[in-house]
Amino acid sequence: MTADVIETQAVIVGAGPVGLFQAFQLGLQDIRCHIVDALPHVGGQCVELYADKPIYDIPGIARCTGAELIARLREQVAPFAPQFHLNQEVAQLQRLDDGRWQVQTAPVLARSAAGVTQGQTFITHTVFIAAGVGAFQPRKLSLEGAAMLEGRHIHYQLEDLGVSFMPDRLAQEPAASATTACANQDVWVLGGEASALAAALRLIDLPPTQAPRRVTLLHRRDVFQGEPALVQAMRDAVAQGRLQLQIGQTTALIMDQTQPHPTLNALQIATADGQLIERPAQHILALLGVSPKLGPVAHWGLAMERKQLQVSAEDFSTSESGVFAVGDINTYPGKKKLILCGFHEATLAAFGAAALVHPSRKTLLQYTTTSTELHRLLGIV
Amino acid sequence: MTADVIETQAVIVGAGPVGLFQAFQLGLQDIRCHIVDALPHVGGQCVELYADKPIYDIPGIARCTGAELIARLREQVAPFAPQFHLNQEVAQLQRLDDGRWQVQTAPVLARSAAGVTQGQTFITHTVFIAAGVGAFQPRKLSLEGAAMLEGRHIHYQLEDLGVSFMPDRLAQEPAASATTACANQDVWVLGGEASALAAALRLIDLPPTQAPRRVTLLHRRDVFQGEPALVQAMRDAVAQGRLQLQIGQTTALIMDQTQPHPTLNALQIATADGQLIERPAQHILALLGVSPKLGPVAHWGLAMERKQLQVSAEDFSTSESGVFAVGDINTYPGKKKLILCGFHEATLAAFGAAALVHPSRKTLLQYTTTSTELHRLLGIV
Repeated sequence: MTADVIETQAVIVGAGPVGLFQAFQLGLQDIRCHIVDALPHVGGQCVELYADKPIYDIPGIARCTGAELIARLREQVAPFAPQFHLNQEVAQLQRLDDGRWQVQTAPVLARSAAGVTQGQTFITHTVFIAAGVGAFQPRKLSLEGAAMLEGRHIHYQLEDLGVSFMPDRLAQEPAASATTACANQDVWVLGGEASALAAALRLIDLPPTQAPRRVTLLHRRDVFQGEPALVQAMRDAVAQGRLQLQIGQTTALIMDQTQPHPTLNALQIATADGQLIERPAQHILALLGVSPKLGPVAHWGLAMERKQLQVSAEDFSTSESGVFAVGDINTYPGKKKLILCGFHEATLAAFGAAALVHPSRKTLLQYTTTSTELHRLLGIV
Repeated sequence: MTADVIETQAVIVGAGPVGLFQAFQLGLQDIRCHIVDALPHVGGQCVELYADKPIYDIPGIARCTGAELIARLREQVAPFAPQFHLNQEVAQLQRLDDGRWQVQTAPVLARSAAGVTQGQTFITHTVFIAAGVGAFQPRKLSLEGAAMLEGRHIHYQLEDLGVSFMPDRLAQEPAASATTACANQDVWVLGGEASALAAALRLIDLPPTQAPRRVTLLHRRDVFQGEPALVQAMRDAVAQGRLQLQIGQTTALIMDQTQPHPTLNALQIATADGQLIERPAQHILALLGVSPKLGPVAHWGLAMERKQLQVSAEDFSTSESGVFAVGDINTYPGKKKLILCGFHEATLAAFGAAALVHPSRKTLLQYTTTSTELHRLLGIV
């Protein structure tokens, strides 16, 4: 074991709504935790798939967007200050001789620019798998040479360029580095959804020392998804000449392979009217959507049923003692994949964990309204 | 059967937070419902026991009071317009030959003043028992003759005087009648808790045609429970001469029993310094606290375990088909009496009910974010 090993009481896999509420409920049980997520930001599906879309069935919240729900849950869990480990996928989970679990993570993509190049080892009493439908993976660019350029010239997340994606209201992660990988270079943003538009607008707003020379948004049709205000902001930036817009499809990568590392020089594009054109390009940020991948969870020896982890509805424990599964990734009789059900599951799992982490304490049901012990843990004076 | 019988798809017993969310989840399943509660207002324990006390563990709501939570849940369920039947306790539950259930209610107290003198009969496909720790019963005054005067001169809820108790923000019930039972009379409010203070302040604020001649707050000690602002408002009213304050304990009721109905004339009080005094009194409003009573639920033939209804954790059905139990009144392996767990239970119970009420429809899991069918039910355009 190296000095990098973190010993803890709990590791939560997944920083979506259920993972965040799991951290809150563990806090009420006086259990501190670390949270690992494959995405570069907190929020899981809520931020990745419906950040600006309304949810109507969170109890007591008649309407909120995915991003708002995550902001609310972060506020709620703040007293317990969970530590986030983003851009990390859990690669290995194995039981140690003393009964604890070793959790080994690996960075999701090769992303030297973002500074995340190695994994993290945790030794923990309990593990909570709140991984939803799996780790989100970006759809990759299917052009010859793309894999060779990945991490240096082809990127699948804005963060890989050293730029933070999150809007201010959610930017609770450490600030982005002062240097970017794309300063004074030609950057192409590929995609027609909100994430592509937001990324392009973010890039043209960087301070002069960090900003690209030119940012071009490339999409196959002149039709874009996203809130009207976002699409309008993109149109305005194009009209002002701050952002370039190209309609067409990438057909080839023009590379220089004479160097030790191949470099990207230009992009070949088939335009809407059937021409093939070449344009200078040093960086491609391909935001072509994400799809979830269950990933290594399937290989940890936990009982499964059709890609879901089987759990007891009593405490949402899996077939392995100390490992719990909550939210969309688990299954039990009556299971419904709803966020509010995940909140219940996380709560009972926290009681299950308390019996393991604090075996000598009697786990009583206390109420946040009246318990001075819970008020102390919550930092309420 | 009389013309008063209401035929419906669902009856919910209990208008606390879980009962309200049950109505919301039934609405999402296109099932309309009626809600019965023994209290004269919506909200159950949240309003009765901790209206102004903070709750910290509702997911996504870092802090709210009991009254705020109820207001939020009422806003959420509003699109489905559940019909409330307050001041009613469920007296009988029996299965009909066609498989449906007959629910018979009875008024909680004899309260001619509030106009609630008879029960209601429902014929329903499903019943949801969300009765918490049982129907709340006021602590009665233990003085000779008190039972005889109950309903005419001795009252246990402000509503019995024809006055609505609810603060404006929660007053979604029909407005109080324009006449009160206490106009131009001597009213004594007994108790030292927030409900007694709030009731006394409400009475002195009535319009002149409805207001008592004199309102006196009587408590055994000059110490009062409640938010500082509420206690201060009481002190101010006393200083202004609008409210009388008497420290002491009631020792006897001075009655006139020569009339067909006995009437109250005065109250005998032992003061703090040991004197016995007599004061004119036509109405006593005794707010000496409430205690829950499981009541008739115990006699409906449902499987129970230590005063809790046994349910399946799959759909929170009881031992009788069509009868579900959610929230604090049920028990199953792992059960924790938390509001957020009740929300989960109500959700799965609604799916269970949908299979019974709409047997020919396939119950699919739909999301409020994306389902046009759910948007139609919610009235979102």
